[in-house]
Amino acid sequence: MKISSDDHHSQKDAPLFQALKRFSSQQPISFHVPGHKNGNVFPDIGRGYFKELLPIDVTELQGLDDLHQPEGIIADAMTLLKDFYNTHKSYFLVNGTTVGNLAMIMALCEHGSQVLVQRDSHKSIFQALKLANLDPVFMPPIVDKDLDLPTGVDSDQAIQWIQDYPDAQAIILTTPNYFGFSRDYTKLFTYARQAGLYILVDEAHGAHYKASSALPLSALDMGADVVVQSAHKTLPAMTMGSYLHINSTNIPVGNIETYLSMLQSSSPSYPIMASLDLARYYVANITDNEISEMLNNIELFKQRLNSIKNIQLLGVSDTVIATDPLKVLMSYQGCSGTHLQKVLESYHIYTEMAGEDYVVLVFPLSPFNSDQVMASIQSACDDIKQNHALYQSQYQEKMDDKPRRLALSYHSQEQTTTHLVSLDDAVGQIAAETIIPYPPGVPMVLQGERISQTTIFKINQLIQQNRYFQDNKNIAHGVINVYNMDYKGE
Amino acid sequence: MKISSDDHHSQKDAPLFQALKRFSSQQPISFHVPGHKNGNVFPDIGRGYFKELLPIDVTELQGLDDLHQPEGIIADAMTLLKDFYNTHKSYFLVNGTTVGNLAMIMALCEHGSQVLVQRDSHKSIFQALKLANLDPVFMPPIVDKDLDLPTGVDSDQAIQWIQDYPDAQAIILTTPNYFGFSRDYTKLFTYARQAGLYILVDEAHGAHYKASSALPLSALDMGADVVVQSAHKTLPAMTMGSYLHINSTNIPVGNIETYLSMLQSSSPSYPIMASLDLARYYVANITDNEISEMLNNIELFKQRLNSIKNIQLLGVSDTVIATDPLKVLMSYQGCSGTHLQKVLESYHIYTEMAGEDYVVLVFPLSPFNSDQVMASIQSACDDIKQNHALYQSQYQEKMDDKPRRLALSYHSQEQTTTHLVSLDDAVGQIAAETIIPYPPGVPMVLQGERISQTTIFKINQLIQQNRYFQDNKNIAHGVINVYNMDYKGE
Repeated sequence: MKISSDDHHSQKDAPLFQALKRFSSQQPISFHVPGHKNGNVFPDIGRGYFKELLPIDVTELQGLDDLHQPEGIIADAMTLLKDFYNTHKSYFLVNGTTVGNLAMIMALCEHGSQVLVQRDSHKSIFQALKLANLDPVFMPPIVDKDLDLPTGVDSDQAIQWIQDYPDAQAIILTTPNYFGFSRDYTKLFTYARQAGLYILVDEAHGAHYKASSALPLSALDMGADVVVQSAHKTLPAMTMGSYLHINSTNIPVGNIETYLSMLQSSSPSYPIMASLDLARYYVANITDNEISEMLNNIELFKQRLNSIKNIQLLGVSDTVIATDPLKVLMSYQGCSGTHLQKVLESYHIYTEMAGEDYVVLVFPLSPFNSDQVMASIQSACDDIKQNHALYQSQYQEKMDDKPRRLALSYHSQEQTTTHLVSLDDAVGQIAAETIIPYPPGVPMVLQGERISQTTIFKINQLIQQNRYFQDNKNIAHGVINVYNMDYKGE
Repeated sequence: MKISSDDHHSQKDAPLFQALKRFSSQQPISFHVPGHKNGNVFPDIGRGYFKELLPIDVTELQGLDDLHQPEGIIADAMTLLKDFYNTHKSYFLVNGTTVGNLAMIMALCEHGSQVLVQRDSHKSIFQALKLANLDPVFMPPIVDKDLDLPTGVDSDQAIQWIQDYPDAQAIILTTPNYFGFSRDYTKLFTYARQAGLYILVDEAHGAHYKASSALPLSALDMGADVVVQSAHKTLPAMTMGSYLHINSTNIPVGNIETYLSMLQSSSPSYPIMASLDLARYYVANITDNEISEMLNNIELFKQRLNSIKNIQLLGVSDTVIATDPLKVLMSYQGCSGTHLQKVLESYHIYTEMAGEDYVVLVFPLSPFNSDQVMASIQSACDDIKQNHALYQSQYQEKMDDKPRRLALSYHSQEQTTTHLVSLDDAVGQIAAETIIPYPPGVPMVLQGERISQTTIFKINQLIQQNRYFQDNKNIAHGVINVYNMDYKGE
C-alpha cells in the first residue's frame, strides 16, 4: 500500500510504534488475519500475558506499510534507524541476525567463489557459506592464553591472508565476539576495501556501541560495508529483532533486499518491528549521564563481586583488545562453570552461559541497583563453599594459527557417503556433521573439516561438563559421522 | 539443554506456555539476553503494550528447551500438536509458512530436478524453486468463470500431467487457496504417491480444518506428505507462527529439520512459540457446539448482508469445490473492491483484501455477535449509495489450460542481461522480475516467464484500481524489466 509520509520525524519519535498505537486505539473491527482478531479470540489461560500486545499484532492493512517494500511508517522508522547509526541504508529484521548473515553473504558472494571467514563465527555464517556453496578460507582468531578464549583476528595477519588468497571476494568477521572482545579493524578494513573485498560483519553483540563514545568502537565506524546487529541482545527489542546496516555506497542494495524478502516471513511480526522501532528510540535517547551511571553501577558491582572470597573476574590484559562493559566473566575458584551457573539459578539468577570455569553475565544497558542481587550471589557463594566438589581446569586449547580451507568442499560433501565412528576414532577423519556447543553457537567442528586430536579432547571435556550441543544428536552417544575417505594423513 | 520430561500431557495442557508462566512467576533475575531483561529495561512509551508479554520473551535457559533440538517443554508441546493433527511429526515455525515452504522444497527436491507446481501458489513457493534451482512445470488451476478466480487444479488433469512429466520428483499444491476454495485431492495424491512423487502442500489458510468434521477436508486427510499451515491466519497464534506437519513415514525428516534450523533464527521467539502452543490448545478444545454456533452466526451474518440493497455475496456453483465458511466474498453492485474496502475502513471495519469488484472477509474461529458491525456496514452502504462512482467490470481473465515450464531457467536468468520496457512493449518478452499483487501474494508474472497480452491487460487494470504490488518498484512507473533475447515469437 502507498502511504504518503509527509511528517518529519526526530529521534524522539517512534513512528511505527506510535502509528500502531493510534490504529489500535480506534477499536478497529477485524475481518482479516491474524485469527486472534486483535486479541479477542484467544484462550483464556493465555490472555494475561498476551492481551495488551495482540491489538498491535496486525497485518499489512492500509496505512500500516509493508516491511518488504516500505514506503510509509516502516520506512520512516528505518530512516530514523539509518540516521542514528549514520549509515547508507538500514533495515529491520524479524528473523534474527541469522537472516541478516544469510542475506548479506548469499546476496554478495557468487556461487563457488572464495571468501575469508573468521573461524569462530556464529553457525548462521557457516550455514550461509553452505547455502551459497562458497569456498571458505577460515581465519584463526588470536586466543588469549590465560582465558583460553578467542579475541578476534590479528589485523596484520589478516592483511597477509588477503594477499595470500587474492581470489577472495569478501572478508567475513565477527566483532565484538560472544565474550565482548573486539579489536580496531580500521586499518584491515581500509586494506580489504582497496583489495576489492566486501567487508561483512556480524556485530550481533554490539548494537549498543553507538550509544556512547564511552563504549568500544562499532564496526560501522571501522568502515565495514555491511553490519548485522541483534537489537534483542543488548538493546530492548523482542527476540528475533535485528538490524542490517549498509554502510557504504558500493553495495548492490537490491540483491540484499531480494534475499531479505525471500528468507523472511511474508507476514512479518508487527510487535517485533515495533520493538525494533522502540529499541532504536531507546538507544538514541539514552543520555551520557545514564551511560556514566550505568558504567559506575557495573564498576561497583564488579568491586563487590571481587570482594567475595573465591570469586575472580576474568579479563584480557592485552590493551589492544576492547571489552564490552556489559559483559562480565565471573569464576569461583575451584568450581566449574556449569556448577556455578546451577547454584546461581537456584537463587533465581540466570546467567548467559557457563564456560569451563566461569559464567558470562550480560548487564542491562541502563543504570541499575545491585544491592538485592548481590545478597543472592553472596548466598550462592556460601552454598558453593560448603557443598561443591573441587574442579580443576584440565587443558589449554590450542588453536590453529594459519588459515585452512575445508578438507572436503560443500559440493563433494553431497556426493560422499558417511559412517559413524567413536569420538576417539574420529581423529584425522573428515567430519560429516557439525558440533556446536550452545551457547555461544560457535561450531567446534565443521562439516567438511578434518578433526584434530585437540578438538576431540575438548569435546570430551564439554561432554563431561554436561554442556549442550545444538543440531546434533550423535554427540551425546559419544559418536560422530565422518566421510568415507581413504585417509592417509595430511 | 537436556530436560527430562516425565509428565504426560493432554490436549487440556499448554506445556510450553505453562512452563514459561511458571518460570516468569519466580521473578528471575536476568544476566542474559534479551536486553529488555524481562521487560524491566524498556522505553516508557511502549510499556503499556509490551510489559505483560516481555517476561516470557526469554532465551534457551536451563529448563526452557531449544526449538532447534527440542527435548523438553517444546518437544512436549509439539507432541500435542502432532497428536491433535494426527501426523507422523509436527513442528512449530517462527518464520511463517514462508520458512515451511522453503524448507520442505529445498530439503526434498534435488538441485536441478523437475517438479510440478500449481501456478497460483504463494510467492514463497516460487522463491523456494529458485533457491533450489529447480525446473518447475507450472500447472494451471481451474478458473471459475463467474468469479474469475482460481479454484484449485483438476485432479484428472493433474494425473495426466504426472504421466506427461515422468521425471518430476514432487507435486506442490496449495489448498485451500486464498479465497477459501478447495478440492478433494485424495485420488490425485494416491496416484502421485504410487508414481513416486513427494506431495507437498501449502495449507496456509486451512489450519482450522481439523477442528471439526463440519469444515472442509484438510490436505492431511487427503494423504499429503508434508503440509505447512499458518497458525496465525485462522487460529489465534501470533503473526509468523506456523506449523509444519510430516504426514507420512517415507520423508527424510532430518533433511527438513536441517533446513528449518538453517532458515530460522537461532534465537527463536518464545512468545510466538507459546502462542503456537496456545493456538493448538484453542483448536483442540473448541467444541462441536461452539463450531455449530459459529457456523450459525456466519449464516445469519450472510443473510443480513444479503438483505442489504446492492450487496451480493459471491460463491462457486460447482459442488465439487468446498468453501471455507470463514471466508466470505462480498460485492456491492457497481462499486469497485478498492472503493468498497475504503468506505468500510472509514467505519473502522478492516477487510482481508479488495479484488476487482469484491472484498474478502475472514471470520473468527469462534461464535460472535454481529449486531453492532452490521449497523456499521449498513451505514457504509448508505455512504456508497450516495457518493460512489459507478464501476463496471471490464474483463474476464483467461488462464492457461496447459502446463508450462519457464521460458528461461533460473540458471540462464543469472547469465542474461535485462532492460526496461513499457508494459505494452513487454508483451511476448520474458520477464526479468516478478509482479505480485498483494494480498494475496500470488505472482501474476514470474521472473523467467513469457508475458502474455492478457496478463498486461490485467496488470493495467490493477494499476487503475490502485492495487498494491509487492517486491516491485518499476510497476508503479508503468515499466518492467525483461531479458535481452532475440525474440521471434513462440
